Amino acid sequence: MVNSKPYVIGIDMGGTNTVFGIVDARGIVLASDSIKTRKHSNINDYIDELYQETMRLVKATDTEGKIYGIGVGAPNANYFTGMIEDGVNLPWPTPVPFAQLLSDKFGIPVAITNDANAAAIGEMTYGAARGLKDFIMITLGTGVGSGIVINGQLVYGHDGFAGELGHVIVKRNNGRLCGCGRAGCLETYCSATGVARTAREFLEIRNEPSTLRDIPVDAITSKDVYDAAINGDKIAKDIFEYTGEILGEALADFTAFSSPEAFVLFGGLAKSGELLLRPIRNAMEKNMLSIYKGKVSVLLSELKEADAAVLGASALGWEAKPLTTSLAVPATAAPAAPQA
Amino acid sequence: MVNSKPYVIGIDMGGTNTVFGIVDARGIVLASDSIKTRKHSNINDYIDELYQETMRLVKATDTEGKIYGIGVGAPNANYFTGMIEDGVNLPWPTPVPFAQLLSDKFGIPVAITNDANAAAIGEMTYGAARGLKDFIMITLGTGVGSGIVINGQLVYGHDGFAGELGHVIVKRNNGRLCGCGRAGCLETYCSATGVARTAREFLEIRNEPSTLRDIPVDAITSKDVYDAAINGDKIAKDIFEYTGEILGEALADFTAFSSPEAFVLFGGLAKSGELLLRPIRNAMEKNMLSIYKGKVSVLLSELKEADAAVLGASALGWEAKPLTTSLAVPATAAPAAPQA
Repeated sequence: MVNSKPYVIGIDMGGTNTVFGIVDARGIVLASDSIKTRKHSNINDYIDELYQETMRLVKATDTEGKIYGIGVGAPNANYFTGMIEDGVNLPWPTPVPFAQLLSDKFGIPVAITNDANAAAIGEMTYGAARGLKDFIMITLGTGVGSGIVINGQLVYGHDGFAGELGHVIVKRNNGRLCGCGRAGCLETYCSATGVARTAREFLEIRNEPSTLRDIPVDAITSKDVYDAAINGDKIAKDIFEYTGEILGEALADFTAFSSPEAFVLFGGLAKSGELLLRPIRNAMEKNMLSIYKGKVSVLLSELKEADAAVLGASALGWEAKPLTTSLAVPATAAPAAPQA
Repeated sequence: MVNSKPYVIGIDMGGTNTVFGIVDARGIVLASDSIKTRKHSNINDYIDELYQETMRLVKATDTEGKIYGIGVGAPNANYFTGMIEDGVNLPWPTPVPFAQLLSDKFGIPVAITNDANAAAIGEMTYGAARGLKDFIMITLGTGVGSGIVINGQLVYGHDGFAGELGHVIVKRNNGRLCGCGRAGCLETYCSATGVARTAREFLEIRNEPSTLRDIPVDAITSKDVYDAAINGDKIAKDIFEYTGEILGEALADFTAFSSPEAFVLFGGLAKSGELLLRPIRNAMEKNMLSIYKGKVSVLLSELKEADAAVLGASALGWEAKPLTTSLAVPATAAPAAPQA
């Protein structure tokens, strides 16, 4: 059967930019562009601009009337309810029925989920996780996010909030304070921000020379640490060892949960490559229960970062269903198969 | 459609006893009995005895020819391969193709899984988890086991070994040595054995009087600690606080994985009731990410312990399928829907 609507729209809402694109069934991005997420204080103005700009791409690509659905990745977006529940960095009040508002505007079915879940769907559909039925996506950006796939299905949990592995506690005592209000979360150590914190700590407690000392301590980024490590800086290399060890220990524990075939790493920090991968793999294998040893791969995302967010979100567009007039889907009434 | 085979056989293989019973579709145990697991050093002799004794019950209950399938819960049993992979406490060599051997003997389809998974299936079918699509079974016995249900399906992982939450590391530094060869595993603190270890530690480092001091220190069991706590013994009560706090912290982390509606506790230690539940709930809520707070129940198993193992295993019998002649199912070729 030829699908008369062979395109989807992918929208990735970040704290700064909202990227959107038209994508075909093979994962080719026909066109993409972006708007500023925080320009409007009224969500209707934001949606108006998003609609205008997206429809401009639709017309330019001659895909009008051929869009099957819209997929959205957004922080704290809930797949079950279609709501953005808590928009820490968003200029309009939340919770907001984002899927409904977008669907009303475009007249096209909309599915939304959080950004890490969208990345997992994109990786499964087009990237390093093609053919894998059991894997865990770990996004290493400003924070640490995760999208868990079990038996080919994304895990949403009973309330749509499953997969917050960045907030598993890895240091029970004297752990670093986390933005979530607790202490010792994985993301305080293994995010880009966490690497910068580690740099500040290491520079303070150690006396060796380091090119990182040439940078004002509060301005050090994970990219600075990466550059220094590549140039052989001992402290910078140790920072990656430390980060990778904590993440590897955590991945060993995560394995005891769903026994995945692979972890797929995505995001700025994942671009550190072997500098981070080697200590992760070593610590993971060393800390794993014996039945899992040697079975679990740690892979890097294969999606181009510029396309990844839109691709991931767009893949969700294929499972968008028309919303009923009543928005409220009971959290316990999970769809039978959230993943196509 | 009337099912012409309305009964299943449930078999629970423990380290000491193998319990088996005939169960109907409503979960009524028509008859049950047990044999010694370790009596025979040859597995064929064990299977012969199991067959003779089970068929005796089948004849007594007039269910011959009416058995749909056999479900087995056994340590380290693999749902995908039908193998018992590693029988630490079994007198015959492993791995052994247990499902195949049993199916050949009885001429009835057999499905096997590990004991904690069987308990989860039993609880979902007949117990405290009826109607729940997302919950985690935690078995608190000699060790700590787990069975994870997501979207109504038991999680087996890519290799059949998912759900070893007793071996998540809860103390990264100076943790207790575990039977698995590592240190700091949840089960070294929160199993019946873990409670006895805590008792020995507390009695050594603290000076208060305790009725537990009347028992030879190496003979103290979790039951002794329970009895003392019920009688108001301060140290015994603190042991339960300590145990519950560690378990509650762990449950908070597990929630970040699959966002379950409930944890269901099963096994000897779970019979401690509020003595253990109160500190678990307190620590879980205190350590949870805010989006999960107040949403996750901690329940006790509702299955009678005498029946629970057989019921759980029998529920798996309904999804038993005739094995093909080739036993080897690739570990990656997961059945589409392992849970009926």
